[in-house]
Amino acid sequence: MRIALVQMPVTADKKENLLCAEACIESAAKAKADIVVLPEMFNCPYSSDYFPSFAEIRGEESWQCMSKAAKRHGIYLVGGSMPERDRGSVYNTSFVFDRNGEEIACHRKMHLFDVEIENGQRFYESETLSPGDSVTVFDTEFCKMGLCICFDFRFPELSRLMALKGAKMVLVPAAFNMTTGPAHWETLFRQRAVDDQVYTVGVAPARDEQGCYVSYGNSIICSPWGKMVCRAGAGPEIVHGVIDLDEVERIRKQLPLLSARRDDIYCLKQKGSV
Amino acid sequence: MRIALVQMPVTADKKENLLCAEACIESAAKAKADIVVLPEMFNCPYSSDYFPSFAEIRGEESWQCMSKAAKRHGIYLVGGSMPERDRGSVYNTSFVFDRNGEEIACHRKMHLFDVEIENGQRFYESETLSPGDSVTVFDTEFCKMGLCICFDFRFPELSRLMALKGAKMVLVPAAFNMTTGPAHWETLFRQRAVDDQVYTVGVAPARDEQGCYVSYGNSIICSPWGKMVCRAGAGPEIVHGVIDLDEVERIRKQLPLLSARRDDIYCLKQKGSV
Repeated sequence: MRIALVQMPVTADKKENLLCAEACIESAAKAKADIVVLPEMFNCPYSSDYFPSFAEIRGEESWQCMSKAAKRHGIYLVGGSMPERDRGSVYNTSFVFDRNGEEIACHRKMHLFDVEIENGQRFYESETLSPGDSVTVFDTEFCKMGLCICFDFRFPELSRLMALKGAKMVLVPAAFNMTTGPAHWETLFRQRAVDDQVYTVGVAPARDEQGCYVSYGNSIICSPWGKMVCRAGAGPEIVHGVIDLDEVERIRKQLPLLSARRDDIYCLKQKGSV
Repeated sequence: MRIALVQMPVTADKKENLLCAEACIESAAKAKADIVVLPEMFNCPYSSDYFPSFAEIRGEESWQCMSKAAKRHGIYLVGGSMPERDRGSVYNTSFVFDRNGEEIACHRKMHLFDVEIENGQRFYESETLSPGDSVTVFDTEFCKMGLCICFDFRFPELSRLMALKGAKMVLVPAAFNMTTGPAHWETLFRQRAVDDQVYTVGVAPARDEQGCYVSYGNSIICSPWGKMVCRAGAGPEIVHGVIDLDEVERIRKQLPLLSARRDDIYCLKQKGSV
């Protein structure tokens, strides 16, 4: 399975962002990608002020653009994320399309990024966004995949639940910043991959030092043994990774971290599920 | 708070191991340690064959040696681990003593290390050991501390439960090997510290290239921001770390990973607890 991580620049011009995403998807498909992943907020600057005005209802312009690109190129498309309006609320939402351009999954960021770091980043997504409430795993011709957005991935409960639901890969459109990125990005993707015995995939916007929010970049794929399969730099780049899903089974057999859980002692459950 | 990590050599002579531990505890106490931590299986070679013959009942020789050393030097002592016999079973057990030499906690390894890595380590603890069944958090004059042993720490549920029970530091006597150590040791201690917003402390036996099981060493302390506070090399060494518990509160306030958990969506519980 070939996966392309689209570390694209994001501007305050939505049309420009959509055109850039389309061009990157085309380029990735020509390089034989099966799955193309866009970054968090690929069509909108990462700023609370922009989210409501850029928000669209499912099926509108950005959704159409992604659906058509997936169908045109016959690829799976994980549409990073975008501000989605639904009734009175705005969500940070990732739509996923299959090779026919059909939507097969949708995840609304469920842990909003409300942080204030001393001498570092201050951001309150909850000023304009509402949280989602679902754990998202979808099926593909390759395997089941988990999907969450950026700050969601900080919470080990969520990726563990995805693995227990059968995910062999966890996809994370994300936008760490210049405080949290250097400190935490690589370790997070490596350790979740080891803990949950999955491939982890992080896709960030390209860094723009002049932007209102400076993305760390460094889009990354890690194997279930915790090795980096590939990693981008800071600027615009499409990273291609080749995924060996047999590796998931090999590692799970050698180091039985999922099967050796003591679920007679502790219990992790999604509420409302059996 | 000053903590000393005793990365001591372990031989097939129990008396020699106890004498070495005593000498290290004395040395650490003289250097003003408040808490001294021994490595996993500090009194017994790490080999399934040895565990039953080295096993002692609580209160016997090794327990007495630790209790007396804690009292003599007025330190908290986390007694790494040792084979403990109780009725028909043998456990991999860590005893903890306060400044008066009183036992204040005891953890029996609850995830046994049964792994077989291609071209790497093969080990089946369950050949001779039985698993414990408790999540261990104890109180000290400084803060609550969690305690688990080596492979236990691989399971994010356990350290999360310790943090939710109030631990600000998680102590892990451990013996990673030359396959898992280079691949996983540092990342594991850094990421658990970040995830659970605690200090993490790993204490390993010194490396003996001729031993039946070659310990990775590299005893380590990581801060809740994921920084390494200190780290040993491979050989015999006592590493002294100074812990700033205020850092735990600062990080928890800036990056609210414990309080922002979505416990309306997922639920992690110790079975039998409320």
